[in-house]
Amino acid sequence: MNNTDFPSIAALAGGVGGAKLAHGLAQIVPPEKLTIIGNTGDDFEHLSLHISPDLDTVMYTLAGLANPRTGWGVRDESWHMMAALARYGGPTWFQLGDRDLATHLLRTQWLNEGYSLTWVTGELCRRLGVRCTLLPMSDDPVRTVVQTDEGSLAFQEYFVHRQWQPVVKRIDFVGAEEARPTRQVVAALRAADVIVFCPSNPLVSIDPILAVPSVRRIIAASRARKIAVSPIVGGQALKGPAAKLMAELGMEVSALGVARHLQDVLTDFVIDTVDAALEPDIAALGLQVRVTGTVMTSDEDRANLAREVLEVGG
Amino acid sequence: MNNTDFPSIAALAGGVGGAKLAHGLAQIVPPEKLTIIGNTGDDFEHLSLHISPDLDTVMYTLAGLANPRTGWGVRDESWHMMAALARYGGPTWFQLGDRDLATHLLRTQWLNEGYSLTWVTGELCRRLGVRCTLLPMSDDPVRTVVQTDEGSLAFQEYFVHRQWQPVVKRIDFVGAEEARPTRQVVAALRAADVIVFCPSNPLVSIDPILAVPSVRRIIAASRARKIAVSPIVGGQALKGPAAKLMAELGMEVSALGVARHLQDVLTDFVIDTVDAALEPDIAALGLQVRVTGTVMTSDEDRANLAREVLEVGG
Repeated sequence: MNNTDFPSIAALAGGVGGAKLAHGLAQIVPPEKLTIIGNTGDDFEHLSLHISPDLDTVMYTLAGLANPRTGWGVRDESWHMMAALARYGGPTWFQLGDRDLATHLLRTQWLNEGYSLTWVTGELCRRLGVRCTLLPMSDDPVRTVVQTDEGSLAFQEYFVHRQWQPVVKRIDFVGAEEARPTRQVVAALRAADVIVFCPSNPLVSIDPILAVPSVRRIIAASRARKIAVSPIVGGQALKGPAAKLMAELGMEVSALGVARHLQDVLTDFVIDTVDAALEPDIAALGLQVRVTGTVMTSDEDRANLAREVLEVGG
Repeated sequence: MNNTDFPSIAALAGGVGGAKLAHGLAQIVPPEKLTIIGNTGDDFEHLSLHISPDLDTVMYTLAGLANPRTGWGVRDESWHMMAALARYGGPTWFQLGDRDLATHLLRTQWLNEGYSLTWVTGELCRRLGVRCTLLPMSDDPVRTVVQTDEGSLAFQEYFVHRQWQPVVKRIDFVGAEEARPTRQVVAALRAADVIVFCPSNPLVSIDPILAVPSVRRIIAASRARKIAVSPIVGGQALKGPAAKLMAELGMEVSALGVARHLQDVLTDFVIDTVDAALEPDIAALGLQVRVTGTVMTSDEDRANLAREVLEVGG
């Protein structure tokens, strides 16, 4: 099939796991047909820098620059600024690598000059050779705030500083109600033949995107195939606090729990072969189920999973 | 003499040469008796960071962290952020070392939180173990702007980006007329038994400090010994554009030219032995002249010159 015939793909992605599938899609989808919509709920200001952790993870992964060990940050990173900051007794709980700092400095400078986060993200991607489109879900600020047994915590405070140890009672997306999706996000979702929910944390990566009312409305109304890949495999999160959060919020910690959580915006659900026994229960939610290997350890795994997902999408 | 008897010293310092004598003074003056007043005319905003090049040069020198090769920046510096910035096609004309960035990030963060540059400078110094007091001349913005044959240039644009090659017609200190010295600067100058003009560029390091009207007025009225060390030795600047600037502005490029320029705020002038022949002409300006070795290549040279200067001061 030539590029004109290739379906338009919009993919929602948060952190490391989502970025891997986004990278898989980028390997097989013509760049003009692929838009990744990233989560900005974990954006924050730190040392007067505007930091967009999820957008950066996706960008670095798409650019082939991601640190393969951590999934976040850039490969071959050095930490001399952090050492100097530590000498000053400055805040060291959020790791800022020397190379990664260039991203934050340029982003902050451009935002201060009045450019939108959408423009800034596009420009950073372009300069790193990323050919598909990466969009923040909104140019308006949305901030994930976690209500815990130790009080209200800004997301990075919870996630990085406290290493997601406090027990979570509720998750808020401050600003989401008032946030507008950008015209680029609206256009990408409206044009999409397939909307992919990458295997990102449903509660703190996908939910903040869906918390922007117009985004959820457009996706819910879309006649595209809407396909999620479960980030929970064998009852565990491959990375991060998804399983712990689901348990604390009273959800079943399984692919079925994820499917239930997202069912009203989905048509299809992809689960791992280890979870094949969940197929009937997920199908009973009215979703088409695809069972396949979903764990991505190589670039080839990423492309293979992307191919499977697009096969589901027809 | 014990510390109580030690004279109070205030020293005006700009870049690398001035920082060396400030360091010499810090080796022999009890810290509570020594205040360095630094130039902020070359401060600027770059990549949304507030950068204070002269204050940093003095601070790093006092902390024993200065790069011995360049005089500015910190020793054993690395440049990974700059390499990443270059990859982005970002602005690379102003070198920001990885370790140095911690200073700019903390300063910017604290200024954005509403702390004064005076407080920020004191806090950075304290955390680096600097025991004497380093003060910006003012917390109000003063910006050195150079009028050249290629138009008006912000100081760092002229000094770093254009490598001080454009021919200078006039130097302006924008904001100086309205700038107030801080109460700390006023107190240090009023308490000073000796005011030292370190061998900094008279036109772009000392003049911006004196361009703050109250500073010049207090120094002019002070009955302290007011001792300048010539930054011009044998008709040449040891570093930087002092000689070139003096020539372009029609001044005699010699220690005598410097003495003439500063004579109304001085009582004493220290020249290098190679300039001994200028002594009568400088004395004819009404200044006491001390002839000694003024070139500082080692920490010991710095302390020795500081000792000579304080001997002049009685």
